[in-house]
Amino acid sequence: MGGPSYLGAIDLGATKVFSLVATPEGLILGKDRRPTLAPRGPRAVLAQMEGSLRASLRRAHLSMRDLGAVGIASPGPIDLVAGVVRHPPNLPGWGALPLRRLMEERLGLPVVLENDATAAAVGEHTFGAGRGARHMVYVTVSTGIGGGIIVDGKPYRGKGGAAGELGHIIVQADGPLCGCGARGCIEALASGTAIARRAQELIAQGHAPILAEMAGQQEVTAALVAKAAKAGDRDCQALLEEVGRLFGLALASYANAFDPEVIVVGGGVTKAGPLFWRPARRTLMATAMLQIRRGLRLLRARLGDAAGALGMVAIIGQEMV
Amino acid sequence: MGGPSYLGAIDLGATKVFSLVATPEGLILGKDRRPTLAPRGPRAVLAQMEGSLRASLRRAHLSMRDLGAVGIASPGPIDLVAGVVRHPPNLPGWGALPLRRLMEERLGLPVVLENDATAAAVGEHTFGAGRGARHMVYVTVSTGIGGGIIVDGKPYRGKGGAAGELGHIIVQADGPLCGCGARGCIEALASGTAIARRAQELIAQGHAPILAEMAGQQEVTAALVAKAAKAGDRDCQALLEEVGRLFGLALASYANAFDPEVIVVGGGVTKAGPLFWRPARRTLMATAMLQIRRGLRLLRARLGDAAGALGMVAIIGQEMV
Repeated sequence: MGGPSYLGAIDLGATKVFSLVATPEGLILGKDRRPTLAPRGPRAVLAQMEGSLRASLRRAHLSMRDLGAVGIASPGPIDLVAGVVRHPPNLPGWGALPLRRLMEERLGLPVVLENDATAAAVGEHTFGAGRGARHMVYVTVSTGIGGGIIVDGKPYRGKGGAAGELGHIIVQADGPLCGCGARGCIEALASGTAIARRAQELIAQGHAPILAEMAGQQEVTAALVAKAAKAGDRDCQALLEEVGRLFGLALASYANAFDPEVIVVGGGVTKAGPLFWRPARRTLMATAMLQIRRGLRLLRARLGDAAGALGMVAIIGQEMV
Repeated sequence: MGGPSYLGAIDLGATKVFSLVATPEGLILGKDRRPTLAPRGPRAVLAQMEGSLRASLRRAHLSMRDLGAVGIASPGPIDLVAGVVRHPPNLPGWGALPLRRLMEERLGLPVVLENDATAAAVGEHTFGAGRGARHMVYVTVSTGIGGGIIVDGKPYRGKGGAAGELGHIIVQADGPLCGCGARGCIEALASGTAIARRAQELIAQGHAPILAEMAGQQEVTAALVAKAAKAGDRDCQALLEEVGRLFGLALASYANAFDPEVIVVGGGVTKAGPLFWRPARRTLMATAMLQIRRGLRLLRARLGDAAGALGMVAIIGQEMV
C-alpha cells in the first residue's frame, strides 16, 4: 500500500493511558505511558490521549501524517458499530461517549475502537505468547479480571462485543459481592482488589504480621501482599495459595467451555510469581477434563503493558489490507 | 444431487438408542427409539444401532440403499479425525472403539460421527429453538449436563472436539464431588442424578414426606421429585428452587463467557417445568452482566429426543452439498 505506513494505538485504562507507534508488523517505534486523568472527565482524557500519541510520535521521529490510522482499546461496553463507549464501569461518570468520532476529529485520522481485553487477546495472539494458536483464551488479572477469546484465529466478540467477560464466571455461589452486582465471580475472589481486601481483613484480625508492618508505610495492594509473602509472611503465602487455587478453578471452567489450545494469563497479579502461578496451574490441570487438558498449554502473557495497543495494531493492520 | 437423497441418523445415548430417517431439510420420515443394550458391551450396541436404523427405514418405507450417509451422535470423547470413541465416561468399559469404521462396514454407507451434545446443538440451531441465531449456547440437563456451542452459525468444537463441556463449569468451589473428579461442577449440583441424590438425603433426614411416600413404590428420580413438588411437597419445591437457582448461576457464566443471542436448554430435567425454569431464568437475568443480558433470549429446546439425530442430518446434509 502507498501513503502513510505506520499505525498509532492507544490503550485507555482505568489507571493509565498507554500509546505507541508501530509498523503493521508490530515493531514498536515509539511509546508513551502516563497515569490517567480519568477522574477529571472525558474531555481531559481525550486531550491526554492525543498528548500521549504525540509523545510516541516524537520518540519515533514521526508525525501524525505518517499514520494510516489509530486504534483505541477502551474499557467496555462499547457499541462497535456506532463507535460509542457506553457507561463504562471502569470509568465512572463517563456516560455515553462517541469516542471514535471525537478522536477522529481531534487527530484527523480514521480511528478504530475495540474492547480493551479483546484487543489485548489479539495482541498476545498475533505478537505474544499465543502466536499460532487456533483457539485461545486470554485472561488478565489486575485491578479487575478481564478476558478475550480467539476462535479460529480471530477475535470472538459475541452478539454485542461483550463476549469473554471472564472475570464474571461464578466459581463460588453465594460468595463475596462483586462489582458487577453478582456474588462469587472470580473477579471478587482473585483480582488485585480482592486480594487487597482479603489481606486487610487478615490484618484487622491480627494475622499477617509481616504485611501488617509493611502496611504502616504503604497502601495494602496485591503487590504488597506478594512482597510480604516472599518475605516469609505465612498468612500472605496461604492467601495467595488460596487465590491461585480459586483462579485455577476459573481456568478449568474456561478450558472446559472453550477447549482452547492455549490459555494466556497476563496482568499485574501474575507478578506475584509462583506463589500465585503454581496453585493456579496445579488446580487447572487437576480439574479440567482429561480430553480438555490434553495438549492444553497455560502461558504467561509476554507483551506486558503493550498487549492492548499491539492488538489494535494487528486489528487495524488487518482492516487496512 | 443425484443418487440416494435421504439421510439416516442415530443418537447413541447412555440410556437409549434413537434413530431416524429424514430428508436433508429435516423432515422426519421414520423413527425408532429403544432402551440401550450398552451394559452388554459395544458389539450388542452396534447391532442394536443397525436394528434401530432398519426399523426407522421400514417405517419410512425405504431401504438402506436410499440413504446417502448415516450420522451418529455419540457420547464423547470422540477423535473426529480417526472416527474413534475413546473411553466414554457415559459408556463404561467401552475402551477405544473405531465406531465410524465398524458402522461403515456394517451399513455399507459413509458414516459421520459427532459429539452428542454438539449434534443436539446443531439440531436445535438448524431446525429447533435456535433457528437464525448467530451465536448460541445449548445446554442439556438430564442424567448429566452437556452442552454445545454455535459460533457464527457453525458448531464450535475447540482444539479436540470437546468444547462446550458446560456440565463441568464450577459454580461452587469445594462443592459436591462430580463424576469428572472435580468438585462443585454444575453437573454435580443440578443434573437429574444430583437432584435424585439430594432428594434421597432429604428422605433420609425425615424430610420431603410426600416424596417419601411415593418413594415406597418407585425409584427416586428427578421426575419423581418434580411430581412430589407439584403434589405440594414443600421440601421438593425448595430443592427444585435451589437447583434452578444454581443452574441460573451456570447460565450466567455461559452468558458472560459467550455473549450469545440465545441459550437453548433441553433435557429431561426441564420437564419439571416452572419449578425449575423460573428460578433459573430469574437468576440468569439478575446475574449476567447488563450488556450481556440485553437482547439475550433463554429458550426451551423444541426437538426433544430428536435433537441429536436431526443435528446429524444437518451436519451430513451440509457436508454432502
